[in-house]
This record gives sequence, structure tokens and C-alpha cells, in this order.
Amino acid sequence: MNLSANEKAEILIEALPYIKEFYGRLVVIKYGGAAMADCHLKKKVMQDIVLMKYVGMNPVVVHGGGPKINQMLERLNIETSFINGLRVTDRETMEIVEMVLGGTVNKEIVTGIHEAGGKAIGISGKDAGLIRAVPVEPGGRMGFTGEVEVINPEIIYTVIKRGYIPVIAPIGIDADYQSYNINADSVAAAIAIAMEADKLVLLTDVPGLLRDPEDSSSLISVLRCSDIPGYVEQGIISGGMVPKVRCCQQAVQEGVKRTHIIDGRDPHSILLEIFTDEGVGTMVVDE
Amino acid sequence: MNLSANEKAEILIEALPYIKEFYGRLVVIKYGGAAMADCHLKKKVMQDIVLMKYVGMNPVVVHGGGPKINQMLERLNIETSFINGLRVTDRETMEIVEMVLGGTVNKEIVTGIHEAGGKAIGISGKDAGLIRAVPVEPGGRMGFTGEVEVINPEIIYTVIKRGYIPVIAPIGIDADYQSYNINADSVAAAIAIAMEADKLVLLTDVPGLLRDPEDSSSLISVLRCSDIPGYVEQGIISGGMVPKVRCCQQAVQEGVKRTHIIDGRDPHSILLEIFTDEGVGTMVVDE
Amino acid sequence: MNLSANEKAEILIEALPYIKEFYGRLVVIKYGGAAMADCHLKKKVMQDIVLMKYVGMNPVVVHGGGPKINQMLERLNIETSFINGLRVTDRETMEIVEMVLGGTVNKEIVTGIHEAGGKAIGISGKDAGLIRAVPVEPGGRMGFTGEVEVINPEIIYTVIKRGYIPVIAPIGIDADYQSYNINADSVAAAIAIAMEADKLVLLTDVPGLLRDPEDSSSLISVLRCSDIPGYVEQGIISGGMVPKVRCCQQAVQEGVKRTHIIDGRDPHSILLEIFTDEGVGTMVVDE
Amino acid sequence: MNLSANEKAEILIEALPYIKEFYGRLVVIKYGGAAMADCHLKKKVMQDIVLMKYVGMNPVVVHGGGPKINQMLERLNIETSFINGLRVTDRETMEIVEMVLGGTVNKEIVTGIHEAGGKAIGISGKDAGLIRAVPVEPGGRMGFTGEVEVINPEIIYTVIKRGYIPVIAPIGIDADYQSYNINADSVAAAIAIAMEADKLVLLTDVPGLLRDPEDSSSLISVLRCSDIPGYVEQGIISGGMVPKVRCCQQAVQEGVKRTHIIDGRDPHSILLEIFTDEGVGTMVVDE
Amino acid sequence: MNLSANEKAEILIEALPYIKEFYGRLVVIKYGGAAMADCHLKKKVMQDIVLMKYVGMNPVVVHGGGPKINQMLERLNIETSFINGLRVTDRETMEIVEMVLGGTVNKEIVTGIHEAGGKAIGISGKDAGLIRAVPVEPGGRMGFTGEVEVINPEIIYTVIKRGYIPVIAPIGIDADYQSYNINADSVAAAIAIAMEADKLVLLTDVPGLLRDPEDSSSLISVLRCSDIPGYVEQGIISGGMVPKVRCCQQAVQEGVKRTHIIDGRDPHSILLEIFTDEGVGTMVVDE
Amino acid sequence: MNLSANEKAEILIEALPYIKEFYGRLVVIKYGGAAMADCHLKKKVMQDIVLMKYVGMNPVVVHGGGPKINQMLERLNIETSFINGLRVTDRETMEIVEMVLGGTVNKEIVTGIHEAGGKAIGISGKDAGLIRAVPVEPGGRMGFTGEVEVINPEIIYTVIKRGYIPVIAPIGIDADYQSYNINADSVAAAIAIAMEADKLVLLTDVPGLLRDPEDSSSLISVLRCSDIPGYVEQGIISGGMVPKVRCCQQAVQEGVKRTHIIDGRDPHSILLEIFTDEGVGTMVVDE
Repeated sequence: MNLSANEKAEILIEALPYIKEFYGRLVVIKYGGAAMADCHLKKKVMQDIVLMKYVGMNPVVVHGGGPKINQMLERLNIETSFINGLRVTDRETMEIVEMVLGGTVNKEIVTGIHEAGGKAIGISGKDAGLIRAVPVEPGGRMGFTGEVEVINPEIIYTVIKRGYIPVIAPIGIDADYQSYNINADSVAAAIAIAMEADKLVLLTDVPGLLRDPEDSSSLISVLRCSDIPGYVEQGIISGGMVPKVRCCQQAVQEGVKRTHIIDGRDPHSILLEIFTDEGVGTMVVDE
Repeated sequence: MNLSANEKAEILIEALPYIKEFYGRLVVIKYGGAAMADCHLKKKVMQDIVLMKYVGMNPVVVHGGGPKINQMLERLNIETSFINGLRVTDRETMEIVEMVLGGTVNKEIVTGIHEAGGKAIGISGKDAGLIRAVPVEPGGRMGFTGEVEVINPEIIYTVIKRGYIPVIAPIGIDADYQSYNINADSVAAAIAIAMEADKLVLLTDVPGLLRDPEDSSSLISVLRCSDIPGYVEQGIISGGMVPKVRCCQQAVQEGVKRTHIIDGRDPHSILLEIFTDEGVGTMVVDE
Repeated sequence: MNLSANEKAEILIEALPYIKEFYGRLVVIKYGGAAMADCHLKKKVMQDIVLMKYVGMNPVVVHGGGPKINQMLERLNIETSFINGLRVTDRETMEIVEMVLGGTVNKEIVTGIHEAGGKAIGISGKDAGLIRAVPVEPGGRMGFTGEVEVINPEIIYTVIKRGYIPVIAPIGIDADYQSYNINADSVAAAIAIAMEADKLVLLTDVPGLLRDPEDSSSLISVLRCSDIPGYVEQGIISGGMVPKVRCCQQAVQEGVKRTHIIDGRDPHSILLEIFTDEGVGTMVVDE
Repeated sequence: MNLSANEKAEILIEALPYIKEFYGRLVVIKYGGAAMADCHLKKKVMQDIVLMKYVGMNPVVVHGGGPKINQMLERLNIETSFINGLRVTDRETMEIVEMVLGGTVNKEIVTGIHEAGGKAIGISGKDAGLIRAVPVEPGGRMGFTGEVEVINPEIIYTVIKRGYIPVIAPIGIDADYQSYNINADSVAAAIAIAMEADKLVLLTDVPGLLRDPEDSSSLISVLRCSDIPGYVEQGIISGGMVPKVRCCQQAVQEGVKRTHIIDGRDPHSILLEIFTDEGVGTMVVDE
Repeated sequence: MNLSANEKAEILIEALPYIKEFYGRLVVIKYGGAAMADCHLKKKVMQDIVLMKYVGMNPVVVHGGGPKINQMLERLNIETSFINGLRVTDRETMEIVEMVLGGTVNKEIVTGIHEAGGKAIGISGKDAGLIRAVPVEPGGRMGFTGEVEVINPEIIYTVIKRGYIPVIAPIGIDADYQSYNINADSVAAAIAIAMEADKLVLLTDVPGLLRDPEDSSSLISVLRCSDIPGYVEQGIISGGMVPKVRCCQQAVQEGVKRTHIIDGRDPHSILLEIFTDEGVGTMVVDE
Repeated sequence: MNLSANEKAEILIEALPYIKEFYGRLVVIKYGGAAMADCHLKKKVMQDIVLMKYVGMNPVVVHGGGPKINQMLERLNIETSFINGLRVTDRETMEIVEMVLGGTVNKEIVTGIHEAGGKAIGISGKDAGLIRAVPVEPGGRMGFTGEVEVINPEIIYTVIKRGYIPVIAPIGIDADYQSYNINADSVAAAIAIAMEADKLVLLTDVPGLLRDPEDSSSLISVLRCSDIPGYVEQGIISGGMVPKVRCCQQAVQEGVKRTHIIDGRDPHSILLEIFTDEGVGTMVVDE
């Protein structure tokens, strides 16, 4: 790609209508999967997020961290199990989850944003009363696996307004100050809803929703909420895609303007979603 | 230039360090010459300026308008003459100058910025007491050809802060409320000095200062103030380039950080000056 | 009028209740006609407006400029015609209208306000997206004679708040960035409505609405909207008075508190309207 | 004085340059003497002060109240005596002084300002720590007759900014929370100094400083500080005029721009001082 | 009470939940009776109020002053009479009431707050148009005994926001600028209603509402509005308690969250009401 | 300790002068040792800090976490060693340090503050560029054991102003985005210096500096900086006390008003230090 300076300038100018359109908009990004594991991809995502901030958008990052948690559990010889894609979280596991998400992953992302030229602040859902949680299965097998009860986004507004990019670890806390491990997609959706975000973007390791998972050209670009039940029945939406689609559905139905499931394995997929007319991945719309 | 979306994203990301560096910076641009006469070039300049605003810079535009003034004078059969490159401005001519600059050219640029997606407001130096002028030759042949006595930039700060790009017609007014026609380069320099601008950019119809005017490869990229007298003596700086260089010299010596004489005939030359390490044209530095 | 200082002080004090009543009020003034053509009258109007600003009111000036436009058209040998009191505006005429209104008339008023001791800023309806226009007769004979589609008064609030008196040229722009020539009375009314002004004052060259145009003692001081149809039928409201009355009617029916048609040929008629109980001219009320 | 509305408008306009000049200025007025005792004069002073506020000045009123105090002392059969024009203030007298100044006189002035159309708030020097006092003669005969130690004008700025006219009773308080009776002229001067007032005006019952007290045409319009010692020696400045002149002298020497001793028996003398070129009374200047 | 420092710290910590609960709350306190007459009690009340301010509450003090008024009336040989607990106020009496309340009592409380370490400002209902009054019996025997027509709390918000404790003398003023003497309990209630206070506290010289006035153990801790008519009929609510209960009733029914009648003879009864779960005195609730 | 409500109220009032004195003050607290390990003590410290916030102080908490780090290192079979009281930190150890401090300890303290009724936000020195670090021994044995190069306290001011208590993990980052483990005492001192704190409090597990470590009655209440060299020589200041004393010394010499080494094993020692005249522990003063 050997472009002249003039050609590069033209490309910057091509971005202008998108920059204008998204100026001042709030975009909640669930960051995880390959885009987090791969050093090179991570750098690209961080650049995308910092660019968004500089051109006037307000990105909010919510991250997962499963692989790092698994590594640490393994080093400590703690067994872990999953039910319906959610980690069974006993007290010992919860401690490790919190330690890894809040102490390691969260700060790595903050530093990545600084490396890309931005300013960030890492926040756990325990900070400033951000995420109030309840157990997904009170008294049941899932232990301290929780779900969002209520979001108090005050701290996010405060830090955004001062020019920081908030980076949020999906840890919640209940009325008795017990910590909960919460799925990052659903935290991202809950924050997007609470803040009436303009966009919710879930980074995944697939190209979006595919009619035929083997055929990446079978991408469903626009998914209507009304089609979801049928697609679930037909098995087109299945496995880990079910909760992701549900998050998007809930978000658009509760006021988030746009929701997207995109492929984090593509470099700059976030920018592409925002700066191209076609977009990338699957957009879930409330129809 | 058939680039993939990914390649375009990479180019946006390449701009990030420059965007970061210039965030919040004040850039005064003298806009005129071919870049104003040519419809296509004009559109590019407008896009550049709007992009600058969206990525966090504060552009201020000062414009000339000689050709349009000449046309109108001709239509009205008013003769006009120049001494040392400055128009001799009698009362009748002054009326036409003011009418054309403030009523036609200024508003065309404002509209061009709106077309490119920005918000602008046109200001004459008579508005809000912006430009106080004195005659260049009191009682002499030059009539109402003036020079800047003092700039009151209050209105510029006000409109910048509210998100507008100020577009300034180089008309001044003296203590007796008489209008003066002032050279746009020197108005741009005076405003840059008064506002302690980070950059002053003069758009011209040459590539910059050339050692050999016939040879565009003889560009002097960096011109030290200390070399100016010698270059003038040698005739390297001559004709219309003399006052332009003097404007830049005065600006850097009175606190403007960077000053540039660039080629307005190159599309996106403003962006190139800002977004490439090499820059374009001639930078005048206080050494 | 040889008054002692004490007598003058008494007169200032007499103004106190009016000053108190109008403190902080927004008054939109259509300025034109004899009050603009006559140098002496012009000075008085400027003083009135500046006084209003100093005693706490917020005047907004909208100006016409027909005679100056006609002069310039004549000098350029461009013929012009009127249909129902509106100028037929072809492209060439539009250029002249814009040039004269925005470049000459507007700046003369700004300077007049400065001479009277105030601070003003001249704005065309093209600046800051102030006046969005549509043609009065799309595709028809009237050409670029337009009417207000929507007012975006943001820039007016900004400059008022900073202590400036806004002076507005009645030029509008459509979605394709085409300029339109709009009747100044209707621009004044539209701005008064958009800003929920406390008062709209139209300066004219008659004493107000007269039952008998030959008899200035037949002034109708208060005109009820409900009486307008009858008066039009009887020919009491006729000619150029029809659109003026319509502007006032629309304004009071869309939220402007008071509307007045006053005689700009009387020195200080604006002050008299505000500072005397009887007022002057014709007040149109929504009854 | 049967003036037409137009003539009255002209007089308002005559005031414009003065209004402009004094816009935003702080004027401390010592109010007392005949202007307070006479109902008609009082009304005029209140109007003057309210007009000043409406046309953009910031008047601050400091009042005396000797006659009302004397009346109450008499009704209560408390004897009172004066040394060098200052009241000897024992504990019982102090209670009455404070009660009359703070409870009666102060509130009458506040109400007078409301009647004239303004908004006022009465403050004693004890409120908000405004006036810290010390005895004029510690342990001596003068008892609780005090002088200003320090002014804390914070509360005055607060109420001025919110549109109120502060009305101040000259009561001070020492470090042990003991009240002191302070001369109102010196409180006015101390407040003017502490707030760097633009003007200090002392209302008196004489036309100003007269060379010959019997001859009101012998007014000294401008009194230079350097002439004061000589005039004192010659007896031109004598009696109650000595401390008034000293207050003015101290004020101009500590940063107050203009100080005036004017005749409160003239209706509107405050306005005249401000709105005429000649001024009234004696101006003390730092020369 | 010989406590170790550690024990004292524990007691501070015990207050924490109450401090948290009342943070930012507005509490209107009617201060009068024994708590005002007794020097020692007065000091405790002042400390309570200052502590409230420092721990984040916004206390507003309304005071009576009957005994001091009586003393002064007696010294001046002015007879006074009461009808239904309200003072018959002729013009002469009104002058004394205003003088004593505004000049003496009000400033004593301001000074008491300063002695206790706070910042206060004394305000009469005449200042800043705070209390508009009407006569309780227009044209009748009660003379200038008034009741609240409307409260304009603007000045209170201003001074609270700047860190001052407002201290209010219950003087009102009618549309003709006539002063009125108003019962302090009802002024306190009216201010609490106008400001939507969180709490209204009436300091009295009884333990609260007693079933048997002879038996202080018969305190009715919670009084439901629905029980008031019955209690009045039974004579349990009688005499001076009737208007106090009525004030509380009106306040809770018009939006004040909590209202209390407490015993001002107990040192620190205000703090006890706020900082203990049981509270003290009688709480009137809207049930 | 069976106190009546009245006695408790008296104790609250006793605190008033201290509350007043410390209103708005910034207090940096190094929290660690027994006060962190012991559940009961921890609760008391949290209460103290929350009380400080509610009564108007601005506490900033910096925490250590050695024991928890040691536990985790042991569970992971990572050996650790100390040189001169500082942990030798290799890359693997650094990861664990960061994870435990930022993910576990920091969030426990945040939650403790919430349990005590306050609002907190946990920040690592990596967040928002708070702590720039350099290695204590570049290229040496100490590895990623760092010291503060510069503090950027912007984020702390932001969160304090919004009512949060900042809780800071002593992790720094260098220009290459490498993390460093920094001694918490020195981070607390550096932050106190950068923010010009009014007080720096180091919680320790000793009563303060003792002349005879065996005799707790030999406490040195006030330690002059000038005496430090002699005490070090005599061995009175030795072992872990040396760096603590050095931190205090540096802090007072660089503008922190008061510094204290106090006994975290005493419940409420922080409150005692602030709310008693004698204070507790050792105060280091710049003499």
C-alpha cells in the first residue's frame, strides 16, 4: 500500500461524513476474544478506540477475560466448570476472577490505550457503586455468577467528561457487598441501556451471525428482532450466539440506537463498522 | 486508488499521532489565490478545514478576494491601480471592496464550510470591533488602504468556543469609523499574533520559497529569519513573496509557534502540512 | 429645550418604571425605510438601540436595504421587477442583493451601533445556519425570492449573551446551499417567533395603520387580529401594509407578546414605543 | 416642565455616554443627613440608586442614623454626649444604636429601594463577618465607639452578583464578639477601599467644601490632597468637614478612583454627579 | 463523663449513619422560648446549628423575640395586649417590634452562630422581598399583625449556597410596603413549605404534645394529622399548642417531609432529634 | 460505655472546633499493616475515613498489600526476597503484585468504604497516568521495584470533587509502559507533596517512634527533622522506621503541612490524631 500523501489525505476526507455523524456519540464496546488475546489485534483495537475519542466520540470499553482467568485457575489447581456458557463461580473462583479481571486484564487495557495515545481509567463494577448485581440463580449451583440488577453510571459520565476513556471490569456487587462475576456482553448491554448509548458493539470471534456457520459469505447483515425466535428455532442462532443476540435485542428494545455483533479478528473492525456505509458484521434492529 | 476498507482504516490510524499532537491547537489560515478561484480546489480546502475542526483543532480563516473585486470594479467601470502590490483605494473603490469581500466572498466561504459539514460564521473586521486600522500612508496616495493597528479577538474566542469556524474579511476600521482595505496576509498574521496561534498558514499559488523560481525542486523547506536579509538581497525573496515572508517573520518573532507558506494549488495542502512529518512548502522559523 | 440638570435627572427617573419592566426582554426590530435612508434618523435609531442594550434589554436588529440594492442594480444595468411587493430575483440579481445587504448595509448598521457606543456583530442568514429558506414560488417567476422555512437562533443567543447586538441581513439558504432573498419584515417576525421575543417592532414610513391614509389622526392604536379580515375587505389594510400586518398577526399568534408597526420617520420612535404609556403607532394584539 | 415625548427621549439619549462610561462600576454611597430625614428627598435618592443599578452600575449603600438614635435615646431617658463629633457609646447606648440602625433605619432604606423598583438586602457589619472593629480609644472614654479594623466584603460581592443592592448598617464587631458603633463615612470609605470601588460619594447637608461657608458660590470643585493641610490650617476645612475630607483622602490614596462630597439636599444630586460633565459638590483627588 | 479519646471517637462514628442520611438536607428551625432566653441553652442551640452546617445539612433559622419586645415596650411605656396568643400590633408597637427583632434579636443570633464557629447572615422578611404579608384581620383590631401571603426564598438559596446560615426575623411587608408582625412558627412553616424542606423543627418550652400536661411521661411521640381534630376536641391539643400543631400539619400536608415539636429546654434537643433513632418530642405526620 | 443521648450530643459538639479546622483539608493516608489485616480494625479505619469525608475533609487512601501478595506468591510457588525492606520484583512477581494489589486489595478497600457509607473509586497508578515510575536500581537486582518519578494528580482532583474517596494502588508505570511495584509509604508521600496536602498519615504497627522500642511510654511525640540524623546514628530510628521517617521528612520539607506516623492497631487512631489536641503517634516537623 504505497500511497502518496495526497491519496492519504483523500482517505481522511472520506471519513469526514462519518466523523460528523458520530460526533459526541456514546459507543459501548464489549472487548474480548481474539482481539484481546492477539497482541497485534489488541493494538489495532486500542488505536481504533483512541481515534474514536479524538474525533469526538465517547467510547466506553467493557472487557471480559476468560482465558487469563482459566490460566490462573489452572496454575492454582482450581477446577472450573461452565453451565450454558456461564462459569460456575464458587467463593474461591470468585476471588481469582476479580483479581485477574480487575488487577491484570483491566489495567492491561488501560495501558494499551495510553500506548495508543489516549487517556483511560480502569473501573471495576465495585467502584463508585457502578454495578449492582444479583445471583443468576439465587441459592443455586451457579454460586457467585451474577447478573446486572442496576447500573449507576455517574462515575462514567464524570470520567468521560474529563477526557478519559472508561474501561470497565464486569464485576458486580450485591446489597450485602458480595462480589459477582458477570458476563461481559450483558454488562456492556446494561451500561449501553443505562446511558442511552448510540451504539453497542460486541467484538466476537466470528464474522457475525451466519446462516451457515461453515460459510462466511452467508452473513446476515441485518437481523430483525422479530426474526430472532424463528432463527433460534431453526438453529441459526445457537450456542454462544444466543446470549449475544439476546443482549443486542434487549439493548435496542430499551433505547440503544444501534447494536452490532462484529468480528474482532479483523483488524480495525470497529472503525470499519463506524466509517463505512456497509458496516461489518450483523446489526440487530428493533423491527 | 482502489483500497480495501481495512487499508483505509490503517490510513486513518496513521493520522492519530498528528491528531493527538494538534488537539486543541489554534491554526490561522490565509485563504486566497487559486485555492479560492478553482471550484474543485476550494471544495478540498473547505473539507480540510472542517476535518481540522472535527479532530479537535481550532481553524480560523482569513480570506482575500482580489479577483472578485477586480471583476466588480470593471463591471462598474471603476479604474484601479496598485503600488507595491497594494491596491490604491479611493472612497468609491473602498465601498466596492467592502461590499464584495463582506457580502460575497465571505459568505461563499461560510457556505462552503457548511457544505463540507462544518458550522461557520462570517465576520468582517468591522464586526465586534475586531480590526482597528490605520492608513498605510496617512494623507497619501494609497487612500483607504490600511494596516492593522490592533486586533480585538474577543468575538473569535466566543464563536470558536461554541463550535463555529470564524471566517474573516480583511476590512478594518479606524477611530473615526472609516473603513480600510487591508492585505489579507497581514490580517492573518496579526490575528495569529493576537491569539498566540500555534500555526499560521498562508495559502499561495507557488510551491513555497524557491531558490530558482523556474525550478520547483529548489524549494527552501525551512527558512531561518536570520537568512531573510541575505535572500532579499540576492533576489531569492522578491516581488509578492516579500510581504508574505515578512508576515511570517513577524508572526514567529511575536509568538506564533509555526508559520508556513504553502501551495494552495495542491489539493489538501493544508492537511498535508499538518499530517505529514515532512510538511509541504516553506516553514519560516525564528532562528 | 433649555433644561436644568435637575430637570434632566427627573426625566431619567421617569424612565425607571419602563426600564424595570423591560429589563432582560428580547425585542426584535425590523429596521428599514426612511429611518435607514436618512442619516440623521439613522443616528437616532442607533442610539435608541444602544440605549436599550445598556438599560438591560436585548435588541435584535433585522434590516432591509431595497434602495441600496436598486442603486447598485441600476449602476450595473440590471433590470428588476416586483410582483405583489416582492422583488423578482434571478441569479444575477440574487448575487447583487446578497452583496449589498451583507457587505454594505449590514456593516453600515454595525458601524452605526459602534458609533453610538454599543457593540454589534453583523450576521447573514447564511452564517451559522441561521435562516433556512424555501422559494416562495418553487419553479416559478419569483426565482430566488424566498421565505423562511426554519430559524436556528443558536448564534443569536451566543452573541447576545456576550453583550453584542446582532444585526441580521435577510438572506436565507436552502438545503442545496442556494441563497434566497427574503422580505425583512417576515424574517424579523420569524426570528421573534423562534426566540419567543417579548416584542416585535416594524419600523415603517407611515404613522401606523390609518383608517384614512390621508388623515394621520385616524391612527388605529390597537388592532385586534379578529378585525383584520374586515379591515382588509374594507381596504383599510391594503398595499404594503397587508404583509406587515400579516407578519404581526402571525407573530402574536405564535407567541410573541407584543407587536408594533411604528413610524420610523419620527426620531426615537422606538424609545417612545417602549418608554411611554401610550406607545406610538399600531399595536397588533391576538384577540 | 412640559416636554414632549420626543424631548424626553432626547434627554435619555443624552445620558447614554455616561451610562456607557459607568457600566459595571462600583459606587459606594454614604447616605445620611437631610437626604435621609426628608421624605421627599429620600424618595429621590432611592430612585437614583435604583436607576444606577438598572443602567448597569453596582451601588453599595452605607447609612448613618444619628437623629433616629437620638430620638430613641431620649424616649428612653438615656443621656448621650459627643467628643470631636463621635458619640460616646456606653453599653446601654450601644444596644440602642444597634437596634435603631439595624432594625429601623436599615430596613427603611431597604423598603425605600423596593418602593423605587429595586431589590435590596440590609446587612449589618455583624452579618457574615463584614466589619471587624476595634475601639477608637481602647479602655478610654469613648466606650464602644469603634473604627474599622478590616472589611470582609465577600457577602457584598455575593449579593451584588445576584442583583441586590446591599444596604449596610455601620456596626462592627471585635474579636470577642463585642459590637461597636462606627462612623458611617469611615465605613463607606473602608468598604470602597476594600472593594476597590470606582467611586465613593458622601451625601452631606452642605454644597461641598466652601472657601467661605456663608457663600455657596465659593465651592471648591476639585480638592487636591496636597492642598488639604493648608486648608485645614486656614480653617477652610473645619468641624464636621475634617473627618469627611480625611475619609475621601484615604480612599483616593488607597485606590478608590473618584471621591465626592455632595449636597444631599439637592434632589438627584447623585445622578447629577454621575450624569453631568461638571459634576456637583467637591471632588477630592490624589494630587 | 470521663471518656477516653477512643470512646469519644466511637460516639462520633455512631453519628455517621445520621450524618449520611441528612447530608444536603434542608432543615428549618423555629428558634425561640427558653432556648433563646437562657444564655447557656442558647449557646448549645448555636453549636447544634453550626454542627449541622459543617456535617453537610442546610439549617435555616427563624426566630421569635417576644420577651425582648415586651421589655422594650415596657421601657417605653407602650401597653400591649394579646388576642388568641397573637399580639395586637398598632403602628407604634410595630415600630418597636421591627426594631427589636431586626436590630437586636436577629443580630444576637447571627453573632451566636459566629461564636460557635459558623458563618451567618441576618435577614428580615423585608429584605429581598422575602416575606409578603397580609393582615390577619384586615381592618380589624389586630392592626399590623400579619400572616404570610407568599414567600420568595431566592435570597435564602443564594446565601445557603455560599456557606452562610440564614437567620430570619418574622417581619413581613404588604403590597403597600407596610410592615407586619408575624408569628415566627407560621413563618418557619411557610418557609419550610416554600423551600420543600426536609424537616421543620419548632423549639418550644414543653416536651412536646402531652396527653396529660402534668405528666411528662405522657408524651405523644407521633401525632397523626387525622387524630388532630379529636385531640383538639378532647382538649389534649389546646392553648398555645393549637397553632403550633396547625403549623406542623400544614407543613406536612404541603410537602415538608418531617415536622417536629421539641423541647428547647433540653440542651442539644435539635441534635438529639436528628441523631437518635427515637428522636425527641412530638413528630407530626401526614396520616 | 452507657451514655445518655445528651452526653453523646456533647461529644459531637466537642468535635466541632476540629471539624471547623479541618474543613476542606486534604489528608493522604497510607493504609496498611495490622489495620488492614484485622477485620475489626479495618472496619474502624473505613468508618474514620468516611466520617472525615462527611465532615468536609478530603481523604485520599494509598494502600500496601504485602501479606496478600506473599500468600498468592506462595500459592503459586514463586519465591520472593527482600533487600533493605524492598521486595525484589522480577517479571513474574510483578504480575502477581499488580494483580493482587489492583484486583483484590484495592477493591476490598473500596468496598469497605461503601460498607461504611461512603463512595469510593479504586485507582491504580497506571490509570489516567497517575504514577510515572523509574526503577530504584536501573538494570540491577531489584528488577521492577520502582520509585515515583512524577505524580499527575488530575484524576484525583476529578474524583474528589465529585464526592468520591480515591483509593490508590502503589503501581507505577515507566515511559515504556512497564509496570513497577512501589513502596506505598513513598507513594503516599509523593501524592501528598504533589497535591500540597494538609496532612500525611502513615498507619503502622507501632505506637510511633519510640526511644526504647521495648517501652511504649518512650514515644517521641514530635520529631524535628534536624534531630533525625542523630537519632539514626543512635539507632533510635532504625529498620523499617528509617524509610517511614524519610517519607515524612521529605513531605514536610516539600510543602505538606503535617506528617504523622501513627499506630494502626489502635481503633480510630486516625480520628484521634485529628480530633484530639494531643494527637497520637509521632508528628514529624520541619525544624
